[in-house]
Amino acid sequence: MRAGPSQEEVRRLNLGTLLRHLHTGGPVSRAVLADRMGLNRSTILALVSELTAAGLVREELPRDTGRAGRPSLVVRPDPRIYVLAFDVGVDQVAAARVGLGGAVLDRRETTYPRIGIRPEEAAAVLTGHAKEMTAAAPADAVCAGAGAAVRGMVRHPDGLVRSAPNTGWTDEDFGRDLAGRLGLGLPVLLDNESNLGALAEHVRGAGQGLEDLIYLHGDIGIGGGVIAGGRLLRGHNGYGGEVGHLLVNPRGGRPCGCGSRGCLEAEAGQGALLEAAGRVPDTTGRQAVRSVVEAADRGDVAARAALHTVAEWLAVGVSSLVNLYNPAAVVFGGTLRDIYLGAAAQIRSLINTRTLAASREEVRFRVCRLGDDTVLAGAAELAFGRLFADPLGHRGP
Amino acid sequence: MRAGPSQEEVRRLNLGTLLRHLHTGGPVSRAVLADRMGLNRSTILALVSELTAAGLVREELPRDTGRAGRPSLVVRPDPRIYVLAFDVGVDQVAAARVGLGGAVLDRRETTYPRIGIRPEEAAAVLTGHAKEMTAAAPADAVCAGAGAAVRGMVRHPDGLVRSAPNTGWTDEDFGRDLAGRLGLGLPVLLDNESNLGALAEHVRGAGQGLEDLIYLHGDIGIGGGVIAGGRLLRGHNGYGGEVGHLLVNPRGGRPCGCGSRGCLEAEAGQGALLEAAGRVPDTTGRQAVRSVVEAADRGDVAARAALHTVAEWLAVGVSSLVNLYNPAAVVFGGTLRDIYLGAAAQIRSLINTRTLAASREEVRFRVCRLGDDTVLAGAAELAFGRLFADPLGHRGP
Repeated sequence: MRAGPSQEEVRRLNLGTLLRHLHTGGPVSRAVLADRMGLNRSTILALVSELTAAGLVREELPRDTGRAGRPSLVVRPDPRIYVLAFDVGVDQVAAARVGLGGAVLDRRETTYPRIGIRPEEAAAVLTGHAKEMTAAAPADAVCAGAGAAVRGMVRHPDGLVRSAPNTGWTDEDFGRDLAGRLGLGLPVLLDNESNLGALAEHVRGAGQGLEDLIYLHGDIGIGGGVIAGGRLLRGHNGYGGEVGHLLVNPRGGRPCGCGSRGCLEAEAGQGALLEAAGRVPDTTGRQAVRSVVEAADRGDVAARAALHTVAEWLAVGVSSLVNLYNPAAVVFGGTLRDIYLGAAAQIRSLINTRTLAASREEVRFRVCRLGDDTVLAGAAELAFGRLFADPLGHRGP
Repeated sequence: MRAGPSQEEVRRLNLGTLLRHLHTGGPVSRAVLADRMGLNRSTILALVSELTAAGLVREELPRDTGRAGRPSLVVRPDPRIYVLAFDVGVDQVAAARVGLGGAVLDRRETTYPRIGIRPEEAAAVLTGHAKEMTAAAPADAVCAGAGAAVRGMVRHPDGLVRSAPNTGWTDEDFGRDLAGRLGLGLPVLLDNESNLGALAEHVRGAGQGLEDLIYLHGDIGIGGGVIAGGRLLRGHNGYGGEVGHLLVNPRGGRPCGCGSRGCLEAEAGQGALLEAAGRVPDTTGRQAVRSVVEAADRGDVAARAALHTVAEWLAVGVSSLVNLYNPAAVVFGGTLRDIYLGAAAQIRSLINTRTLAASREEVRFRVCRLGDDTVLAGAAELAFGRLFADPLGHRGP
């Protein structure tokens, strides 16, 4: 156990916290910042001055206040500051330029005709997108960091991709490769797509303001991210929160890509739904899931039965998660958003009978608010996190 | 997001950290403390002086060093400081006087002939034990706090016992009642027995030094506590870590006391083992579990089959927990210690086939090191935690 922070470390912490307030809450006056952070106005003035000198914030008159009289200045994120966010999907890669404050300033994506993009191929395509976006950015724009999401198990803290079964990657140092190609002199921070989805929904989505939440992301597989006590639950090596491999049907369940069987991903994933609805092998992807949910809604018998089965396993999994984590919210994203919306009554009813009364009484079930860009938003938050940890770029002693 | 700590808060943090070092690591020189905490020697001197003045530590010559020459002084916890630790079991209550540094100085317990002690009865008996121990303590001993473990769901942070199915308690403010009877002017902090078991094994048991661990406690039910990132995972209301209600056999599983069925507790708890071994209803308790495990070891066919079935469900549950939390260790306590030791090869082999390779590669399986006093030790750590949060008793602004 190390000692508490030094005065220099506290100053850095306060600079980061102030910047984070502006990033998530938008422009506000210094008086509001003083109130929110519990600091006096002279300390806030000093912090704002330092951040202004570093080109990270600006003090300006607010946009039209609609009120008479001279309005007071507001502190806002400097619009020149941005990060690069990358998302390596199974059959698609996306890149975005995201401004301090969270606005997506530019976005590019490439879809592949087949599943399983190679890491060097993904890095090359994303580098191309990044270079185009950088070239198109204003001349005075400043890249403050980069973050990327991958569909796999990412070791913490070094970011090595240990295993990404759906793309066939093993022990790939993808972040280093991508950082080298970008040549910005910045690391590319890496994490699992569902951890980043959880982070994004926690910071600016359906879980905003909640310290304990579970994000469930349906794609080809099922991923998850857990925020516990306000922090991403990473576990010993960074692999925590693999909710897709919660064993819901351990005896006689469907085989799972991980080598086990009866995992939540095997029983409630895309494959299980489409197969049960008799739609395999001609369709896959988000649209295929939506079409089954829509068919079920129209009364199609096979689609209804398929949705019912998958929803039951999803509810069993969520019940265990409610008992294990006592979350304030469970957020459904990706294809699970559609499945949850298509079977919400059934899912909630089963959860009500399979969970501890105290654990479920305050839990809320929500769908992700950031839509298809949840994961990309999380990659941006990962990159901004490094800026907030040390806004002036001073390294500690 | 509030600002970082003030200088006064940092000082308090450092006093608490120093005291915690002595509590868990034992007496050491100021030089060693400076090194462990990353502070300079003059700061350590100032902190030690304050703690000495408050009667919390002493500087003394070490006990026989076995070396020639003048030994340097060591800082040790003041032997007058202690906490009261209470454990309300299903058919037994225990109380202990535990010194700063972790030594059990005195201990009393009362066993009941029936299951389901009432809260006021438990509070009265524990108060009697506490008064006897206080009377027997040296005249200059100082009680610095009190903590209690209950078999139930305890709301955080106020400590209300929402539900304790095995004793039939509902919404009992047990901590307040006990504190009132004790009349020490100190609150009695409360938590679930398995959370406290996890805390104890984390601080001074089989999980010492590990930031991510799961403690599984077998009693009449199965409880669990999770340490994630060095902190107890409490969840939104304090009910996190209810691993006994992980659904391992959701379709057609055994009914569980919580109203669900197929919970880990229902499939791998005491009842399941004893029933499968044909020993119900004439036996219960830890000794009954041990006798089945011993009979299995001697080759008794019914006992072997029963242990095999229960061990399989336990392994299924642990596999899910490894995937969900990526712990550095899983610690088996209470009756699960016996079951794990009786079927370790089977359990580990099943876990190897049902978990993600990356998540399991560094996990260690251990039995609890603090034995039958794990929970009592955890209650003491809970009480000490309050002392460490503010060693000089100053309340923040």
